[in-house]
Amino acid sequence: MSPIRFRGGEFAFIDWIRAQKSPPGEGLILGPGDDACVIDLGADSRAALTTDMLLEGTHFDLNTVSAAEVGWKAIGVNLSDIAAMGMEPVACLAAVGLPEGRGRKFAEELYRGMRKCADRFGVPIAGGDVTSWRETKTVVCVTALGKSAGKEPVLRSGARTGDVIVVTGELGGSLLGRHVRFVPRVLEALTIVRGYAPHAMIDISDGLSSDLGHIAMESRVAAVLDESRIPVSADARKASGRDGRAALEHALHDGEDFELLMTMAEGDAQRLVKDKPFTTPVTIIGTVREGNELFIRGADGAERVLEVRGYEHLRGE
Amino acid sequence: MSPIRFRGGEFAFIDWIRAQKSPPGEGLILGPGDDACVIDLGADSRAALTTDMLLEGTHFDLNTVSAAEVGWKAIGVNLSDIAAMGMEPVACLAAVGLPEGRGRKFAEELYRGMRKCADRFGVPIAGGDVTSWRETKTVVCVTALGKSAGKEPVLRSGARTGDVIVVTGELGGSLLGRHVRFVPRVLEALTIVRGYAPHAMIDISDGLSSDLGHIAMESRVAAVLDESRIPVSADARKASGRDGRAALEHALHDGEDFELLMTMAEGDAQRLVKDKPFTTPVTIIGTVREGNELFIRGADGAERVLEVRGYEHLRGE
Repeated sequence: MSPIRFRGGEFAFIDWIRAQKSPPGEGLILGPGDDACVIDLGADSRAALTTDMLLEGTHFDLNTVSAAEVGWKAIGVNLSDIAAMGMEPVACLAAVGLPEGRGRKFAEELYRGMRKCADRFGVPIAGGDVTSWRETKTVVCVTALGKSAGKEPVLRSGARTGDVIVVTGELGGSLLGRHVRFVPRVLEALTIVRGYAPHAMIDISDGLSSDLGHIAMESRVAAVLDESRIPVSADARKASGRDGRAALEHALHDGEDFELLMTMAEGDAQRLVKDKPFTTPVTIIGTVREGNELFIRGADGAERVLEVRGYEHLRGE
Repeated sequence: MSPIRFRGGEFAFIDWIRAQKSPPGEGLILGPGDDACVIDLGADSRAALTTDMLLEGTHFDLNTVSAAEVGWKAIGVNLSDIAAMGMEPVACLAAVGLPEGRGRKFAEELYRGMRKCADRFGVPIAGGDVTSWRETKTVVCVTALGKSAGKEPVLRSGARTGDVIVVTGELGGSLLGRHVRFVPRVLEALTIVRGYAPHAMIDISDGLSSDLGHIAMESRVAAVLDESRIPVSADARKASGRDGRAALEHALHDGEDFELLMTMAEGDAQRLVKDKPFTTPVTIIGTVREGNELFIRGADGAERVLEVRGYEHLRGE
């Protein structure tokens, strides 16, 4: 058993689901527990499939974000999941539950936000489901389908002792706005998968500590972050100025960055950093070693255990 | 323009969505507007994808149905959609939004209902998303992925003049309980597709009149039902006894029967009826001809226009 502990009742329920004995699905290559499942469709073809439900009041607050931003985010989180499998998104479906009081203009704005994100990556919104209901809250559930990028899917479980830990972009403070405006790292993921052989990959939705914990636990390895190398975003510093928590804490735990977190051979990582095949920053932030815990190494070289903190939803559960 | 009219604001919004110019998705074979979309995954492989969101209070009432029944229905409606494309379901995803007050036992019962339906067809629940929220209503959104059954997908738009109209099972009164206990016609659809060459197919979710309207409109044909041949269910008669509406009206308009409605060459239909390749009843209920309206022929041989009535949700919108 890994000593890494995830918080929250939802994790416990998901563990229960994963423990339910499933009959062997003959086409199921990878079931629940990664960024997406992977399905064999025969004819040498594999599909990745993922879904995310966004609930008003939990995942977004319409007092602070627009309908178009919610739409962008609903597509973006799913494209991000397909990207994190090292696969190529090919279609999305969008199901929405609309409060009767919201009206048609709201629905159109929501759809336009979805299309803006999907169009950016040439991914069609190929279908969906629209229902209105008497409740006051909006529900958006998007599904994305991906196909092979010509390489094997990159799982959370692939990290190897001796790998380095690599992250795209800058982390922390996403609730200041980036969590509804982020650009899913589709192009970066495909470039990395095709040229730099990542061993494990995940997108940062729960937070760097939590998602690194997922990789470490699934890969049965320990991970050590270098405190001085964590790319702390300007938003993390701004959030720090507001709440007094260290900017580094925001970068480590805030979540909804939707950056790629990977492990790969050190040589491949150095080549990636040197090549700069895209404009998004790439940073080597730590190493993988034997064991089953997470650590963070301070400026003085001393290591301390890194606590895993799950993403805190808007309502601070 | 077809004179067939569908009711309701959701149909209007869906029309708006379909009118939005979509950039050509290179892998998109069939976009919104059928039971599922169809996507080319390369390597001679095609996938069908569909999603349905069930909203408490609109699609189900937990005072009259159990959590397990909701779970069964959530999977069943999606398997039914894949079946109606003449394709084979290979995986499902389940996203749920759970009121905090419902508790863990409710969540487990919901999941067990899903698994019971999915297991019956050997379809894995390959992933999903679980979130709790402070609202009092439950949201369930399931997605199903299908693969080719070795034949071309069977669309709503394929009906031809001279075809006969065929339906499985018996219709009407599903709200008395069948709407959460129906068996999706997966095996029947695959048998029919492989052996009897249906030209158009849809599953009856909105109601016979409405779903026949979808086939007629998409295929640019007229359809004539034979009143005496409509398989009226015992539930339709029971519902008639309660509300005084004719049992035939229930069979024509109630919806949520989740039976297969098809058109095919008369010879193939007669062979299907004679072969009885499965125990589910199959009935020839009408014919397809040139035109753009729906008709129903009474016992006296006189035809009248068949009004399209969309499915009325629980709350009678």
